[in-house]
Formats: sequence, structure tokens, C-alpha cells
Amino acid sequence: MSSFTRMWEDLVPVGRDPLTRGYRRFAWTREDHILREWFAGECAARGLTLVEDRAGNQWGWWGDPDATPGLVLGSHLDSVADGGAFDGPLGVVSAFAALDALRDKGFRPRMPVGVANFADEEGGRFGVACAGSRVLTGVLDPRRARALRDDAGVTLAQALRVAGRDPEALGPDPEALRRVAAYVELHVEQGRALCTEPDDPFGDPESWDPRRAVAIGTEIWPHGRWQIDLFGEANHAGTTQLEDRSDAMLEFAAVVASARVLARESGCVATIGKVIARPNAVNAIPEHVTAWLDARGPDPEAVRRLVDTIRGEVSEDGARGTVNEDSWTPATTFDPTLRQRISDILPDAPLLATGAGHDAGILANAGKPSAMLFVRNPTGVSHSPAERALAGDCARGVEALTAVVAGLAG
Amino acid sequence: MSSFTRMWEDLVPVGRDPLTRGYRRFAWTREDHILREWFAGECAARGLTLVEDRAGNQWGWWGDPDATPGLVLGSHLDSVADGGAFDGPLGVVSAFAALDALRDKGFRPRMPVGVANFADEEGGRFGVACAGSRVLTGVLDPRRARALRDDAGVTLAQALRVAGRDPEALGPDPEALRRVAAYVELHVEQGRALCTEPDDPFGDPESWDPRRAVAIGTEIWPHGRWQIDLFGEANHAGTTQLEDRSDAMLEFAAVVASARVLARESGCVATIGKVIARPNAVNAIPEHVTAWLDARGPDPEAVRRLVDTIRGEVSEDGARGTVNEDSWTPATTFDPTLRQRISDILPDAPLLATGAGHDAGILANAGKPSAMLFVRNPTGVSHSPAERALAGDCARGVEALTAVVAGLAG
Repeated sequence: MSSFTRMWEDLVPVGRDPLTRGYRRFAWTREDHILREWFAGECAARGLTLVEDRAGNQWGWWGDPDATPGLVLGSHLDSVADGGAFDGPLGVVSAFAALDALRDKGFRPRMPVGVANFADEEGGRFGVACAGSRVLTGVLDPRRARALRDDAGVTLAQALRVAGRDPEALGPDPEALRRVAAYVELHVEQGRALCTEPDDPFGDPESWDPRRAVAIGTEIWPHGRWQIDLFGEANHAGTTQLEDRSDAMLEFAAVVASARVLARESGCVATIGKVIARPNAVNAIPEHVTAWLDARGPDPEAVRRLVDTIRGEVSEDGARGTVNEDSWTPATTFDPTLRQRISDILPDAPLLATGAGHDAGILANAGKPSAMLFVRNPTGVSHSPAERALAGDCARGVEALTAVVAGLAG
Repeated sequence: MSSFTRMWEDLVPVGRDPLTRGYRRFAWTREDHILREWFAGECAARGLTLVEDRAGNQWGWWGDPDATPGLVLGSHLDSVADGGAFDGPLGVVSAFAALDALRDKGFRPRMPVGVANFADEEGGRFGVACAGSRVLTGVLDPRRARALRDDAGVTLAQALRVAGRDPEALGPDPEALRRVAAYVELHVEQGRALCTEPDDPFGDPESWDPRRAVAIGTEIWPHGRWQIDLFGEANHAGTTQLEDRSDAMLEFAAVVASARVLARESGCVATIGKVIARPNAVNAIPEHVTAWLDARGPDPEAVRRLVDTIRGEVSEDGARGTVNEDSWTPATTFDPTLRQRISDILPDAPLLATGAGHDAGILANAGKPSAMLFVRNPTGVSHSPAERALAGDCARGVEALTAVVAGLAG
């Protein structure tokens, strides 16, 4: 575990907000650059061959994947705004640590083994999650990707140029993809599904059932993001009578309330986590509110119906609004053969479906056998500075990943 | 009208957003500096003595107000975000134009006449409206004022320093106030109260009743601003079940809906025009939403009850929220003697109460005889790029103001 701890301590200060203690590691920023340089350094220290593909994802290869496709471990290093320390980095650090453990034992893989750092997994800056793996596999058109804008109006193309990349080179990379025989992503769990014990602040989670420390992923719920634009009429907050108002904030409040009711009725989850009001002045009636809806659930038809109902509500009589799809990811079932082989290697590990999207899902949908390991999260909190994983469970995660590589590539 | 037109054209481009066509003239910014320099230039061109008081307000004096207190005309030059061209500048430009008209006629005032540009009337940057006149008259504590922050976290003290002012000098200025015998503020109307004709896009408002082009203000409704903070728990939008969520955006939606219902029931107006969500990420449940409530009405008790009801709702069981008063301005009745004298000068002008706060209200509450003239607004829209006043009505406003100065100071 010493290499794990050393790597973890390297990453702790990068992009951490001193006020919120959360992370702000957005794609193609200075913080992202530091993380990418760190990844390159870890590859160099292990003699791995570093490749950056046309979508900006980093790959460190042990062996020659152009001769024989290899087994890839990894995750991502970027974060949501004020995110936690584990979502992403735990998978990358555990991958390097598993390689170290195997090499310490003198393990010689029969196929190349790679470690991947996928670019812009969270979409925290440009709004599209898994942008790196989506561009890589061709599901996100590079022209559309280049035109994505952050909140300051900077396009991805401009951000790439600032980061020293050629935005025109952005695009699918079949060659990089051909090198991948299978992909295994270890990730912190993002709910309390692995916790049978109550969330007791005085309890000792380190004593929890060790057989539930690591789970094997079965599927990812279908999920999508939609941009909702609501239009009112800017006017003075003091002098405009209620009946003369067209207030976009009132429409927004109705959408938020409605999304929760519809989600409850349909067995989905729906979240409106981001809102921008214009002009956003205390004494002006809002004329334009932009909100983003995140909706997911086990049944894709139920998710679609929820969004269609909201679309119907915002474009109803008088109220002027639009709902546009930013992204849609169908249900992903991880490769049953690969999952069974991992279950054979880790016979105690429970099986788990998740509502969160991951690069492993994008690769699975592109036809690559993919799998996930989830490390228990004692609070279930994620995308927050309160995100946690226990040291003992992290060690069990590295052991599980080590066993998986030994079993699949040995 | 030629000096009016020339001044108006000077101001048109300053701080105009090329995209929205609205104005962004925030206190102590580069745009504000340009406007203040413009004001100083207009004073110099007329031989007026320029004074900046300890609150940052600018005064141009014709005659010596330290010998005899004088009659002051004026308004402000700052704007809300994406505001209109008339709110503020119409009063300042009309004041200079009225002076020009009087001088052209060889008018010699029997008391000093001043033109004022009040600093930060809109509170568009630091959140407190009429900050300049409030500090001047001592109702806004300079320590509290210095600590006000804009959305980028810059304090007013820092902004003053950047603008070359000493923030420690900020404070009440009884000497500047003593020079004011009376204050008359001309302002664009912010509703359709002066329009008896329908808002017909094919009609010709220039042909509307000229006797309703300018009104005399009677009172300002009591009004206030409150900051509402709602706290949830940040968590992952995909993996957190609805029953495990504490979503600050849902609380916010409830407050918006409730404010409208309460306003309707109590004969007030209530607006939530500004909202900031944190972390404001598409796939994170919001943990903190800050919103600002603007509430006004003819009955101060009804406004207070509305705010108290909302405070009760947000601090109810489970939901964690706070409501803090940013400002409260009691009902203001303009000096009846001054109003009668103006009504004698402008016998046709209708009388009008308003829901909007103005520096004239702050001065009135500080014991200075104050009055307002409102220039008809054909659409009733204000705090928006669509804010309008007709050229003919603006000329009638200057004529009315000219007559008022001739009558009061002649």
C-alpha cells in the first residue's frame, strides 16, 4: 500500500478549494494540466509507454498493444465543481498500485496491460459527461465537441488551444480503441448500497463486513441531460403589477417541483442541479432562466416520458420554454462473460447496478468488453467534499483489482 | 433640446452589452468611471463647481451652497444588469438641459442650483440599492458598506481602492447634506400608470395626451430586500435515491412559488430575481441556494408579514434555511409643501405613487424636502433593454423641470 499512499498524497492538494475543501479539477484547466503531468510521471516511473489519443485521453502501456490488444485499468482525474477526492482518482491510483503489487510478485502478463486517464469524464466545465470516451468512440461528434462552451463562454476548441492541443485533431481514434481488449474501471460507490450497517456517526465502519467492501458492476441505468430554457420579460420588481408580469423564475420553480413529482411517480431520479438566471438582478424580473435536468432510471421509457411531460409543461399556453437534449446514454449491461470471469476471481463480491455514467459504460456501448468494481462508500455521499472511502476498503479494492489482472492477463 | 440630444448620444454607448443591448454600468467599475468623468466634464463645461462627497456622490454647483443651501436636481448614472437607457441618466441629462434652458433665457437664480449624480443607486453590484445616498445620510453604516461583496467576492472597500478612493474616508457627510435645501429628481416612469391608451404596437404614442407626459410623485411604497439561504446536501444526481436527498433547489422552488401566492393574497409585489446555486453542477444535488427576495407594497405591515411567512416556511422541520434583511426602506411621503408648490407650477401634471425606491426617497427620509417628476413610459417596461421614453415626452420632462427650477429658485 505504500505506493498507493504516496500517489494519494500527491493528488490531495491539486485543485482543492480552500473554502469548500471540495475539488475543482475541470478539463483543460491548469489543475487538469497538473494532473495529466502527474499521470505522465507515474507512467514514466514505471516504464509504461505514454500515448495521448485524438480525444485527449492518456494511456500508459506495459507491453506493446499494437502487437496484441491489452487489458486496460483506469478511470479519470477531473472532478465536478466542489467534488470529492475519490470519484475518478481512486480508480487511476488503484490501477497503478495493482500494477506495482503484481510487479513486486514478479508477475509477467501474457498480454499488454494499460492504465487509462479519460479526459473530461464529469463534464463539469463543458456540460457533456464522458466527453473523452465519447469522442474516442465516435458517439460525440468532434465538431459539436469543439463548439461546447463553458460558463465563461470559452469553447472547448479554445480551451484545447490554450492547453497546447490542436482542436482540429480532436476526433474518434479507432487505432487507440483497437489496442483495448477489455477495460476494468474501479470506482468509489456513490450510494450506500454496499452498507448493510446504519450510517451511525459513532459506529466504526472499519469493522464492517469485509466481503461487502468491493462489488462488481452489472449495468448502468439509462441516463441523460437536458437543457431547459424558460423565457419571461425583464421588468422592474417594484413597479410591475403581478398581473403584468412574465417571470421566468416562476416557470423555473414549477419545473423543479414537477420534475420531483414525476420522478417519484415513475421510479426514476431527476435532478436540477444547475441554474443560470438573467439578468440575475435583485430588482429585475428574470427574463431568461436556463436550467439543466439530469434524469435516470432503470426503465429508459419512463425517463423519456418524464422529460416529454416536462417539455409539454414548459411549452404550454403562454409560458415560453424549450427543452433540448444535451446527451442520452442508453442502458448499459456490462459484458456477461467478463463479469462472470471476475465473479469467479472474486467469489464473495456482491453484484451492483448503478445510476451513474462512467467511461466503462461508453466503452461497453462501443463493443469493448468492460467491467467495473465499486469500492464501498460509508456515507453514500458523492460529488461533494463529504465523499468518502475507508482506507481498509481502498486496500481491498487494490487487492481485488490485482487479483482481476492476475486472473485475466496471467 | 440640442444639448439634451448631444448629452444623450454621449451616454448611449457607455457600458452597453453588444449581445443583450442592455446596460451594465455597475458602481466603481471602468464603465462607472467613464460616466463619472462625463459628469465632471459636463459640470466643467458649464462652470459648475464639482464636489465629490464622502459617500462618492458627485455634485455640480452653480453658486455657493456653503453660503446659502441650494436646489438640487439629478439622479444616477449606474444601471442594473442589462438595464435600460433611461433609468437614472434621464434625470441627470434633463437636469443639465434644464440649466441650459434657464441660462439661455438669462435666468439668474436667487439660490444656488446643483446637479447630483448619486453613486450606486441600483445596487446592481453590491446588492444594496441607493448605497450612495444611504451612506451620505448615515442610514448605511460605512463599516457594513465597506464589507459588501460583489459576486466575484470583491468588497466595496477593494473596489473603492481600485477606483482610487480611500475606503476609510467613506461615511456620512453632513456638510454635503447641509448644502441641499431641496431635491427634485426626474425619472422615467416604471409602469404604465401614465398611459391611458392601450399598449398597441401599431398605435402612435407620440400622439398621446401631452398632459399625462409628466407626473408628480406623491410617495414611495415601503420596500425591502432579503437574502434567503437554503441548505441541502451535495450528492450524486444519479446514485442518490429521492428519499435520501436533501435538495436545496427544491426548497428554492417552494419559496419562489410561495412568494408569488403570498404577494397576491396581501396586495404586495414580491420578486425573486437573483439566484446562485452551489455547486451549480448538472450532476450534483445542490447543497446551497442563495436567493434574493424583493418585496414592496402600499402597506408596510403586509410586506413584513409576507417576509415573516416565508421565513417560517424555510426554517420549518427538516428544511434548513435563513432569511436575512439586506435593506428596508419605510414608506416615504414626499414633502407636501414642496409637492404643492410643484403642482402649482405644473397644474396639469397627474399625481403618482411608486413602488420603486429612489435617492429622493432616502433624502426625504433624512428630512430634506424632496420631490419627483415621472416621465411617461409607453411600454411600462423598466430594468430591461426594452425600457422606453418618447422623445416628445423627454422634451416635456425638461420643460417641466425648467419650470420647476424657475418657480422654486427664481
